[in-house]
Amino acid sequence: MARTLVQFDFPYPGPWGAEMAQAMDGLARDIAGEEGLLWKIWTESQADGLAGGIYVFETRAAAEAYRDKHAARLAEFGISDIRARLFDMNDTLSDITRAPL
Amino acid sequence: MARTLVQFDFPYPGPWGAEMAQAMDGLARDIAGEEGLLWKIWTESQADGLAGGIYVFETRAAAEAYRDKHAARLAEFGISDIRARLFDMNDTLSDITRAPL
Repeated sequence: MARTLVQFDFPYPGPWGAEMAQAMDGLARDIAGEEGLLWKIWTESQADGLAGGIYVFETRAAAEAYRDKHAARLAEFGISDIRARLFDMNDTLSDITRAPL
Repeated sequence: MARTLVQFDFPYPGPWGAEMAQAMDGLARDIAGEEGLLWKIWTESQADGLAGGIYVFETRAAAEAYRDKHAARLAEFGISDIRARLFDMNDTLSDITRAPL
């Protein structure tokens, strides 16, 4: 099973920046312990009213399990129009462009 | 100006994997020299018929310039339905989840 990238984004009303960091601190610590997670970058765009994340998992199975779990959690938060995509990573091309993999 | 993440994805018919790496080698070397680019991960999903990339740029201005340039280049390749989003990164939360930033 190959490492898999998960791309999430969804409409999000805030809070942003430092306030978002405070509000999501517990969630981030929970996600840090997620089975098979190598890392997550937390994304936010106040201008577009969007937030999300870019994740790399050790295996496709871990990525799929997380996608399902996180989509359900976001829906419980009242978030809809969730866009979640799983991707393979092209390591040869990513090496050329200095990807941190 | 803060570091900015760029998320691109679009319908893509292949080639995939090693053949994609061969076909895009020159493009990857060009992108590696892009002004302000820290790194790019190359993404592909044969199952969904999608490809794209996750980029981190040193500044928002560099990210915006690249988004416009790359969207135009993809359109020249005959690719449509291009989805491109710029995001700030929440460094506090990303640190908790081991992001390579």
